[in-house]
Amino acid sequence: MRVFLFFCVFVLGAWFGAGAELKDTPEIDADGTVRFAVPAPENMDSMAIDGLPGGRLCLSYEDGAWRGERVLPSNFYTYTVSGPEGVKMLDMGNVYTVRDMGWLMNYLIVPGGEGDLYCDADVAHGTVREEWYDSPRAGFRRRLSVYTPAGYERGDSLPVLYLLHGSGGDETAWLTLGRASRILDNLIARGEAEPMIVVMPNGNLGMSAAPGAGPEGQKGVTTRLPHTMDGAFEESFPEIMAHVAKNYPGCGTDASNTAIAGLSMGGFHTFHIAKENPGRFGYIAVFSGLITPPNGNTGSAVYENIEEKALGLFAAKPELVWIGIGKDDFLYDENCKWRDFFDKHGCRYEYYESDGGHTWENWRRYLSRVLPRLFRSNAE
Amino acid sequence: MRVFLFFCVFVLGAWFGAGAELKDTPEIDADGTVRFAVPAPENMDSMAIDGLPGGRLCLSYEDGAWRGERVLPSNFYTYTVSGPEGVKMLDMGNVYTVRDMGWLMNYLIVPGGEGDLYCDADVAHGTVREEWYDSPRAGFRRRLSVYTPAGYERGDSLPVLYLLHGSGGDETAWLTLGRASRILDNLIARGEAEPMIVVMPNGNLGMSAAPGAGPEGQKGVTTRLPHTMDGAFEESFPEIMAHVAKNYPGCGTDASNTAIAGLSMGGFHTFHIAKENPGRFGYIAVFSGLITPPNGNTGSAVYENIEEKALGLFAAKPELVWIGIGKDDFLYDENCKWRDFFDKHGCRYEYYESDGGHTWENWRRYLSRVLPRLFRSNAE
Repeated sequence: MRVFLFFCVFVLGAWFGAGAELKDTPEIDADGTVRFAVPAPENMDSMAIDGLPGGRLCLSYEDGAWRGERVLPSNFYTYTVSGPEGVKMLDMGNVYTVRDMGWLMNYLIVPGGEGDLYCDADVAHGTVREEWYDSPRAGFRRRLSVYTPAGYERGDSLPVLYLLHGSGGDETAWLTLGRASRILDNLIARGEAEPMIVVMPNGNLGMSAAPGAGPEGQKGVTTRLPHTMDGAFEESFPEIMAHVAKNYPGCGTDASNTAIAGLSMGGFHTFHIAKENPGRFGYIAVFSGLITPPNGNTGSAVYENIEEKALGLFAAKPELVWIGIGKDDFLYDENCKWRDFFDKHGCRYEYYESDGGHTWENWRRYLSRVLPRLFRSNAE
Repeated sequence: MRVFLFFCVFVLGAWFGAGAELKDTPEIDADGTVRFAVPAPENMDSMAIDGLPGGRLCLSYEDGAWRGERVLPSNFYTYTVSGPEGVKMLDMGNVYTVRDMGWLMNYLIVPGGEGDLYCDADVAHGTVREEWYDSPRAGFRRRLSVYTPAGYERGDSLPVLYLLHGSGGDETAWLTLGRASRILDNLIARGEAEPMIVVMPNGNLGMSAAPGAGPEGQKGVTTRLPHTMDGAFEESFPEIMAHVAKNYPGCGTDASNTAIAGLSMGGFHTFHIAKENPGRFGYIAVFSGLITPPNGNTGSAVYENIEEKALGLFAAKPELVWIGIGKDDFLYDENCKWRDFFDKHGCRYEYYESDGGHTWENWRRYLSRVLPRLFRSNAE
C-alpha cells in the first residue's frame, strides 16, 4: 500500500501540477498600456485587433504570438481579431468574452479610473439570480435576472429598480455588457448609491429567456422577434411586478421606492410603462431612448394618446425623470423633439448629453450617473 | 407633431426591424445531422471542425460560408474551428460558447435522446444564484453557485447536494459544462429526482471566484493555484455549510438530507470531506476521482490516517457511496486500488464503469445517474 501511495503521489502530482503557467492576455500596465498577444501560427498574412478607440491595431509576430500594444484610458472595452484574409476571430488567449446580440467579442478592463467601477473590487458583493416567472400574457415561463445587494434577507424592505435592455438584448445584457452588478456593488460599497434590488426582465415578449436558455433551444440570435415594441411587453409588465411583490415582499411597493430605467428599446419600454402607470414609479430614466412607436399603430392601447398620457406622467410628480443621450446617437433628433414637447408643457426633467452615440460605453456611464440619484429624495 | 411622428415611425421602424434573420448555426436535423456553416471568406486555404466524435471534419466553401455536416448521437458537444494554417478559432456563427479552464469552445446539443436531459425544456425551472460568503480560512470573500428547485421558498426543508468541480474548474463549471441546472430541472420535472438544493462552491481556495469574477481581475487561467489539494479546501468546508445553514435554513441538516459529489479533484474533495465528517453526509458520489493526495504530505491533518478514516466513513453507514469512472480514465488504476481496499474491508459501495475517460461527457452522465438515487432511502 505504501508503494502504491508513493506511486500515486508522483504520477498524479505531475498531472495536477501540469497546468500551464499562463500570462494574462492581454497584459495591462498601470499606465493603461494594453499589450496583446494573440496565439496564432507565424505564417498568417496578417492579424489585427478591431473595435478599440484609435481604429484597427495591426499585430506582428514575435516570440510565439501576434503582438501589439495600445494605451487606453481606464474603461471597459470589447474587441475582435481580424485574421488571415480578414476572417473575424476571437483572441483565443483571452478567455473573457461577451455576446452582443449575435456577435461574440473579447473584453478587457483598464483599471485606474472609470474602469474601476466595472471591475469586481474587494467589496461586499450582492447576489445575482436567474429566476423564472409564469407569463400568462406570453403564454409561457419567462426568465429574469435579479440583483440583491449584500446583506439582503427576505423580509427586508428595499427599493426596486427595474432595468430594461435594448432591442436584441435580453435579461443577461445589463449584467454582461452593462456590468450592472459590479457598478451596483461598487457604488453601494462607496456609499454613493442606496442598497437596492435591481430586476432585469427580458423585454422581448416573444422569447422566454436569453438565447440558449429557454425551450426554444439554440436559435440564431435576431432582433426580428415577435412582439417587439407592439405594446405587449408593456401590457405584460404587471406580471413582472407581481413576481417581485411575491418574491421580494415589502420591496418596491410605491413610487417612493420604485424606479424604472432602460436603454434604447428599454428606454422606450421605460417611458411607456411609466406613463401607463402614473404615480407608480418615482424615478424614471431613459438612456438613448425613444418614445415614438417605431412599428406604428400596433393596435395596442399603450400607444394611444401618447402626448396626453405623457403629460399625465409628469403631473404625478415623479421625483426624477432623467434623459440621457449621446451627441452622435441616431435617436438624437427623436430626443430633441420630445424634450421640446416637454419643455413647452413645463414638464420637469433632467437632461444629460454625452459624447458618442448609441453605445454600451454610454449606457454603463448613464447607469453610473443615475444610480446615485435614486431613492434619495433630497439628492440634487 | 403628426409629421414628426410619421417620420419617426418610418426611420425607426426600418432600424429596429433591421436585425438579420439569422439561421441557426449549426442547423440540427431531427435525425441528428448537424450542418455547420462557419462564416469566413472564401480564400482560406482550409477550415475544419475539431473536437467531435469521428475526428476532424473538413469544411468546404459554399454559398457564403464554410460548410460540412456530421450525424451525431443525441448529446452535448463542444468543438473549435481550425482555420488557415491551423489557427485555432471559434465558429463565429454559433454564439453558444463555453470555457473549460483556459480554453474557449463552441457547443451544440443534439436532442432526441441523452441530449434532451441537457436542454432547457418546457418545464418548471429552478433559480440559479451567484452568491458570496466570507471565508476566514481563505482570508477573503468567495463566490458559490446555488440551484434551488422550482417552487422553493425560504423556510422550506429540502435536501442539499454539495457538487464539486475538478482541477481547473470553478463555481460555474457544473452549470456551464456540466449542465447541472438543466439536468436537475428535467429530472425533477419527470419525477425522477427529488427536489433539492444544489450548492456548487469554488474548490480552489486560492481564488475568490471564477476567473474574471473576483477582485483578482482578468487573470490568465491556470490550474497551478495555491491551495490545490493541500487540505485547505476540505478544512474550510464548514464555512460553506454554515453559509447554507444561514441562507437555506432547515435544508441539508443531517445525513438523511445531505449529499456530496464531485468530479476528479472534486471527487477527491468529496471523499476527504466526507471521511473528515463521518455520519454527516448520507450520500457520497465520486466521479473519476482519486483519494491519494497527489501533492503528498502537505502538512494537513486531512491527509493523515486516510485508510483508517476511510473505514470510519463506511462504518457510519451512509445510504449510498457511489463510484463512477471510465475504462480509459488515467485515474482508473487509482480507483481499482482503492476499490480493492474497500472490498477487502467489506465496505459497501456501488460502482459504475463507463466507456471513455476523464471527460465532461462522462460527468454529465454520472450526475444524471446519481441524482435519481439521492434522498430516496428505498431506492435501489
